[in-house]
Amino acid sequence: MISFENDYIQGAHPEILGRLAETNLEPLSGYGSDSYCESARRKIRKACGCENAEVHFLVGGTQTNAVVIDAMLKGYEGVVAADSGHIAVHEAGAVEFTGHKVLTVPGHTGKIDGNELRRYLQGFYQDENHEHMVFPGLVYISHPTEFGTLYTKEELRQISELCRDYEIPLYLDGARLGYGLMSRGTDLSLCDIAEFCDAFYIGGTKVGALCGEAVVFPRKAPKHFLTAVKQHGALLAKGRLLGIQFDTLFTDDLYFRISSHAIEMAEKLKKVLREKGLSFAWESPTNQQFVVMEDEKMKQLRENVVFSFWEKADRDHTIVRFATSWGTKEEEIEELKRLL
Amino acid sequence: MISFENDYIQGAHPEILGRLAETNLEPLSGYGSDSYCESARRKIRKACGCENAEVHFLVGGTQTNAVVIDAMLKGYEGVVAADSGHIAVHEAGAVEFTGHKVLTVPGHTGKIDGNELRRYLQGFYQDENHEHMVFPGLVYISHPTEFGTLYTKEELRQISELCRDYEIPLYLDGARLGYGLMSRGTDLSLCDIAEFCDAFYIGGTKVGALCGEAVVFPRKAPKHFLTAVKQHGALLAKGRLLGIQFDTLFTDDLYFRISSHAIEMAEKLKKVLREKGLSFAWESPTNQQFVVMEDEKMKQLRENVVFSFWEKADRDHTIVRFATSWGTKEEEIEELKRLL
Amino acid sequence: MISFENDYIQGAHPEILGRLAETNLEPLSGYGSDSYCESARRKIRKACGCENAEVHFLVGGTQTNAVVIDAMLKGYEGVVAADSGHIAVHEAGAVEFTGHKVLTVPGHTGKIDGNELRRYLQGFYQDENHEHMVFPGLVYISHPTEFGTLYTKEELRQISELCRDYEIPLYLDGARLGYGLMSRGTDLSLCDIAEFCDAFYIGGTKVGALCGEAVVFPRKAPKHFLTAVKQHGALLAKGRLLGIQFDTLFTDDLYFRISSHAIEMAEKLKKVLREKGLSFAWESPTNQQFVVMEDEKMKQLRENVVFSFWEKADRDHTIVRFATSWGTKEEEIEELKRLL
Amino acid sequence: MISFENDYIQGAHPEILGRLAETNLEPLSGYGSDSYCESARRKIRKACGCENAEVHFLVGGTQTNAVVIDAMLKGYEGVVAADSGHIAVHEAGAVEFTGHKVLTVPGHTGKIDGNELRRYLQGFYQDENHEHMVFPGLVYISHPTEFGTLYTKEELRQISELCRDYEIPLYLDGARLGYGLMSRGTDLSLCDIAEFCDAFYIGGTKVGALCGEAVVFPRKAPKHFLTAVKQHGALLAKGRLLGIQFDTLFTDDLYFRISSHAIEMAEKLKKVLREKGLSFAWESPTNQQFVVMEDEKMKQLRENVVFSFWEKADRDHTIVRFATSWGTKEEEIEELKRLL
Repeated sequence: MISFENDYIQGAHPEILGRLAETNLEPLSGYGSDSYCESARRKIRKACGCENAEVHFLVGGTQTNAVVIDAMLKGYEGVVAADSGHIAVHEAGAVEFTGHKVLTVPGHTGKIDGNELRRYLQGFYQDENHEHMVFPGLVYISHPTEFGTLYTKEELRQISELCRDYEIPLYLDGARLGYGLMSRGTDLSLCDIAEFCDAFYIGGTKVGALCGEAVVFPRKAPKHFLTAVKQHGALLAKGRLLGIQFDTLFTDDLYFRISSHAIEMAEKLKKVLREKGLSFAWESPTNQQFVVMEDEKMKQLRENVVFSFWEKADRDHTIVRFATSWGTKEEEIEELKRLL
Repeated sequence: MISFENDYIQGAHPEILGRLAETNLEPLSGYGSDSYCESARRKIRKACGCENAEVHFLVGGTQTNAVVIDAMLKGYEGVVAADSGHIAVHEAGAVEFTGHKVLTVPGHTGKIDGNELRRYLQGFYQDENHEHMVFPGLVYISHPTEFGTLYTKEELRQISELCRDYEIPLYLDGARLGYGLMSRGTDLSLCDIAEFCDAFYIGGTKVGALCGEAVVFPRKAPKHFLTAVKQHGALLAKGRLLGIQFDTLFTDDLYFRISSHAIEMAEKLKKVLREKGLSFAWESPTNQQFVVMEDEKMKQLRENVVFSFWEKADRDHTIVRFATSWGTKEEEIEELKRLL
Repeated sequence: MISFENDYIQGAHPEILGRLAETNLEPLSGYGSDSYCESARRKIRKACGCENAEVHFLVGGTQTNAVVIDAMLKGYEGVVAADSGHIAVHEAGAVEFTGHKVLTVPGHTGKIDGNELRRYLQGFYQDENHEHMVFPGLVYISHPTEFGTLYTKEELRQISELCRDYEIPLYLDGARLGYGLMSRGTDLSLCDIAEFCDAFYIGGTKVGALCGEAVVFPRKAPKHFLTAVKQHGALLAKGRLLGIQFDTLFTDDLYFRISSHAIEMAEKLKKVLREKGLSFAWESPTNQQFVVMEDEKMKQLRENVVFSFWEKADRDHTIVRFATSWGTKEEEIEELKRLL
Repeated sequence: MISFENDYIQGAHPEILGRLAETNLEPLSGYGSDSYCESARRKIRKACGCENAEVHFLVGGTQTNAVVIDAMLKGYEGVVAADSGHIAVHEAGAVEFTGHKVLTVPGHTGKIDGNELRRYLQGFYQDENHEHMVFPGLVYISHPTEFGTLYTKEELRQISELCRDYEIPLYLDGARLGYGLMSRGTDLSLCDIAEFCDAFYIGGTKVGALCGEAVVFPRKAPKHFLTAVKQHGALLAKGRLLGIQFDTLFTDDLYFRISSHAIEMAEKLKKVLREKGLSFAWESPTNQQFVVMEDEKMKQLRENVVFSFWEKADRDHTIVRFATSWGTKEEEIEELKRLL
């Protein structure tokens, strides 16, 4: 049985486990105040080209979104997202749980269109009743999106400038950021993201860590953010678990190397899928690939391969997802080729 | 430098790290649905003597308290706790963040007194204005308490019966439960706790795990608890990290053995502290020991030993805390003896 | 200057003011426990054909929606509404403020389509990820809708049966209920609504009262609803203000008579608008009429008549709203006719 | 039967009802944008000596407290109050419902002691764990307090200066403010309050209005406060109901004259109670008087007089409350004298 179910089917990259074992007996202070967290912060600041960035470590993605969004919004504000955005659909209402509405604009294979966003914002302030409505207080995008797609530098610049015109901060959900940065065609770097966004997170859980997301505020974090994290039940006692993992990921470019490996595997996977005559539901330049499969074929393949149901395409076809990760092996793709 | 700062200064017990490494490459499904989580649940149910208990794994203590309390309360209810309770003081208002008041009764070195609780509940329902007040909807106790103290079986039975008379569930915060169960004088077993309480958690973070708390609902969990966990941002993607840890802790009694070791070390520590003429701020039968120290002495000792400030006792004295854990070594206590 | 701005431009129906003055000096107990509230409750129960209904009086519409919805939902649930629903758009996120998501289905001139609702509910439970999503816990409809449209008895029955199949309660926002009940073509009575819905409110603010909405739970109210009302800051100290108003409105059918008057005025208004060649943006059988007007014409008419901007129709045309109420006089419609 | 049950047993002062009737048919815009609201704001600003004050009208006291406190606090902050404060005890957890903790300091017949407040604030910032605790973000006092007591100018100044030292705003709950301002011994004026506080409200419900509280931000209101009011379900559609009432109350000093009348009646009442040998539970200089009464006596008196149970004093005695208001008549006090 081989698995392309998702990018978090395995534990952590072995180098991370090794470092956890090596440092295990050192007594360290808690809550992110230890030396490994500090070292990881320094390396992340450097990778982002932001010497003054504030970096915090949280445990998971939904948690990170809820804490950051709640901390950045004023009480009467909501967050603008694509209607397919993870926070809008698949986080069990975690943002609303903090009292804030998720305001949606149409998603285009997961992406917000700058012009549509502009029309939404203009329309909001032109509406005579807007004081009876939820103010847009933050724009949320994911990169890669839930569809595996990417913003170009120009697209992100446009959204960023628009946000700055309206004095609305821009937040990027980078649960799979590594795969976006290492995608072959992208022109968007980590430094660009730090320049264009007011907050973003570098995903660890889906890029080689046991758990953990690194939140970066390139310029200024919300006041007393640590207390907000604690209030959300999101402050890890043994902060070392996050610090050591990110310190390892940002040593010798491990984060980028393993992301790059997953991209390479995804490219091979695409080739195999294409050769086997499967059509892509949409084009994805990252580690998730979505193809349309005959239901009969799907059923048969599932006997030997794990992959994800995405949605029904039509009566007899289904869109399914194959994901690669740091742990995907070339042999597994060869094996898939044989089985298809 | 030796450290008695707290019981989470080190990583995980080596057996746990070993199991994480061994299982690292196995592809497993997420969100607590993997086989290790299932195995851990079985072992915990057995240890609790509750074949039908529902067991969920969360990451940290404040998170666990907020999720469980919010899920068990109706909208108009609050949770009753000792005024010194962790949820009342040191969780940054995480319970209030979910919309519920923490209602306090006096704490007696961390413990709720059954008779005072009875008077509070009687008084509430007798108050003609009680419909304008927050209804008590859950009773929260910690065991061991924040002061290291323990309830006797008779005390817990009294509180439990009182709660059942009022149809109010009882929830026990077991962040350091192992140390309570292995304390030399205790007459309260894990099965007793499962019998007397409607929910409790078995703390992992402070008892040998990297992170993780096992929530046990001995009879019936709140409906769709998994969704509530997700909504609070508390659902770990790689649930394996929690499942493998608890599976290891509940294999061959590891949880109890390491707790027992910490108690043994605490007893030795008590002896040393007593011999050195230090007076105890209060009697603690668990792994945390609180002594009154001259400020001058404290300053001097800190050059070689890490321990915690608790609170000022008087002008020239301070109450300080020494904690033991699975990782405390007998040599460290000998060393402390020499330094005192 | 004549005004068709909305249905709450004037104070209260004079009979209400008269009763407030007559009873003004009687000492009465507070918070809805007075004899006028009790009398109003009896009359409302009778009008609804529900001897066991529980009736509560709240002050305003957004408040009522937020309190009722929050009290009826479990923590992990959201409320399903048309995307144009008042709670989804024009209540400043009051529902989200209580922690719950507003889940939207397409609105058809304000109405939910039973078949689309069925597909949404089926789809939700079929989605393998639905435990990571917000559960539909209540269906919200408005009647009349924000567009002045009405459900037929058959349409409401279908939605009601669907809700019961899924064990999801149905809640009807009756801010303008009187106008719906007195609409000429409707086949839906107050008793039908009480039969089909699990909660609804009879709007007072927009139907002749100074303020006030009567919430009806035909069968069973949420437990301790009064405390929930207080918790939301919605419990009026001088409950008499609401009791006396609703007691008056439900004496000698005043509520229905004034609603009927507004409908009669709306029918005359429609005739005038039609005669003057204005086209209707959509057909409304209630007290709000929506017509498409040339911008030039609109500008000119505004010198003598107050009415509301609804939305831009195209470059040179606007959809505008004219509303009638208990206070609309035939002369005003004549005057409008002259001015058009 | 005569009633001293509370200060909201009757409707509104007759001048208010008269004005509501006179203006009833005028078409006015909604949500507080009408000319009566504007006029009331001007008069209130003048009475407060604050030309730039921002004034908003809300419906009730608990609502006002919840909206103002939530709007003034940052997410991670709580509000400091006396442990007997209305928000801490009798508002069904309305503040916690908005996500914020009520932090308590000891109440002294309802009052906060400046020195104790200072020690609390100093202690908070000195506590090494304060980032894991709820930050004090606002100080709440009531004037008169729930016990009818008053702050002196010097006491209020001390608290105000302390708040400014810590950059924490000060909010005064003036549900019964008129009775405090007209109390015979007070040296605290409305202008003083506007100088010392950052927000306060002038109570209408308990001082002659049908409903309504005027919130005053002497210098600067929270941004988009109107939207926050709407979000809390607290924005009244027919804002005129509040505007006309406050405009009337602040015309020809009506608010002060009726408060003064209640004080005069309270002084006569005190004399009667003293003459009849009843002892006061504590000294109150305002319209609420608290006496200790033998239970037998209480039972007997209740046949002819309505008054409130406050709390049990001992086995055979009860503390009871008598309240006067604008509607109290001298004859009623004479009658009480005869009955005692």
